[in-house]
Amino acid sequence: MRTDLAATIDHTLLKPEANLAQVQQLCAEALEHGFKTVCINRVWVEDARRLLAGSSVGVCSVVGFPFGATSHTVKAFEAAEAVAAGADEIDMVIAVGALKQGSFDEVRRGIESVVRASEGRIVKVILETCLLAEDEKITACRLSAEAGAHFVKTSTGFGSGGATIDDVRLMRRTVGEALGVKASGGIRTTEHADAFLEAGATRLGTSSGITIVTSG
Amino acid sequence: MRTDLAATIDHTLLKPEANLAQVQQLCAEALEHGFKTVCINRVWVEDARRLLAGSSVGVCSVVGFPFGATSHTVKAFEAAEAVAAGADEIDMVIAVGALKQGSFDEVRRGIESVVRASEGRIVKVILETCLLAEDEKITACRLSAEAGAHFVKTSTGFGSGGATIDDVRLMRRTVGEALGVKASGGIRTTEHADAFLEAGATRLGTSSGITIVTSG
Repeated sequence: MRTDLAATIDHTLLKPEANLAQVQQLCAEALEHGFKTVCINRVWVEDARRLLAGSSVGVCSVVGFPFGATSHTVKAFEAAEAVAAGADEIDMVIAVGALKQGSFDEVRRGIESVVRASEGRIVKVILETCLLAEDEKITACRLSAEAGAHFVKTSTGFGSGGATIDDVRLMRRTVGEALGVKASGGIRTTEHADAFLEAGATRLGTSSGITIVTSG
Repeated sequence: MRTDLAATIDHTLLKPEANLAQVQQLCAEALEHGFKTVCINRVWVEDARRLLAGSSVGVCSVVGFPFGATSHTVKAFEAAEAVAAGADEIDMVIAVGALKQGSFDEVRRGIESVVRASEGRIVKVILETCLLAEDEKITACRLSAEAGAHFVKTSTGFGSGGATIDDVRLMRRTVGEALGVKASGGIRTTEHADAFLEAGATRLGTSSGITIVTSG
């Protein structure tokens, strides 16, 4: 049993067809194995909060997920509502289109508005690295740091690609020790988890947490 | 040139990495070919409104897209903001998880809140049929009608499957003539478009509109 790994894992269930029974199971598993958080869609935050009450397992909700293509105002509203409903952490998707066309102020303002609305909770900025060139990944990391986010995160898990070791190394080099780095998307084995942490990740997003902590 | 088909097409660009230049091109194409609307993410509504000002091409924005897993309040807020920004039509994603666990009042209330927030604009309810069993598709159609929506729509175009002729027939049978039926996801040829309209669709969502209207 790798309890050291469990404490780095956001135990994740984000598929749109998830139902309450699956969220209940996710929370029970998180309590049993001591995962850091459960990472769920906004619609399940109240249930997860109730199911995890009094425990050390946090509730992580996503915002603007998985496209990041709604307005800053909507993202801020969604984050504020998730925090009011009991979310401890907010994983938001960056404005990918704005980033790709060089509207960097726009991207930074979008992150700032979610950080502000989250009132001190941890905010992770999902870059969706599979859509970005290397310079765009670097810029997104810098904008996230400037905007006061606490983590940069590789992937939604629903794009054409997930976390890579090279991306995690690049993100860690860019943010230094100031921010956390969350690797997510396609992490399924203990060896994989160890490799991402070795590359600089401080948090892992995965739906394979039980396999990762029990088979290592 | 099939102008009859053009008037049924929502000319669609919903990928998260779309940028302003692509939205400008989409709007120019919609004006040239006389498409019914452009269907875009929330972040582009103001631009599309400006680019299409004075024309008969409408602006269609998506809400809770593509997962439908955010709260009713967030969806309503997003719809109201999109309408204020100039959207003529709102394509919202249903609460798939709630539907699958039988929380039908919850699903209906979610649609009602978006219909109310959209202040008379056309609201289409995306069922994401690839995730649903046949009885769930029928229930979703009935709940959409009861909630005052104007259309049921098959797919986001980002799920594991798109529109099928069988689904469109089922949806048309279920809603009768009271609602429109929008087929979307994977419609790429003139023959395909004709077949969906023949099966009962009254609107088509596609990014292949130019091929469809010019090669037929």
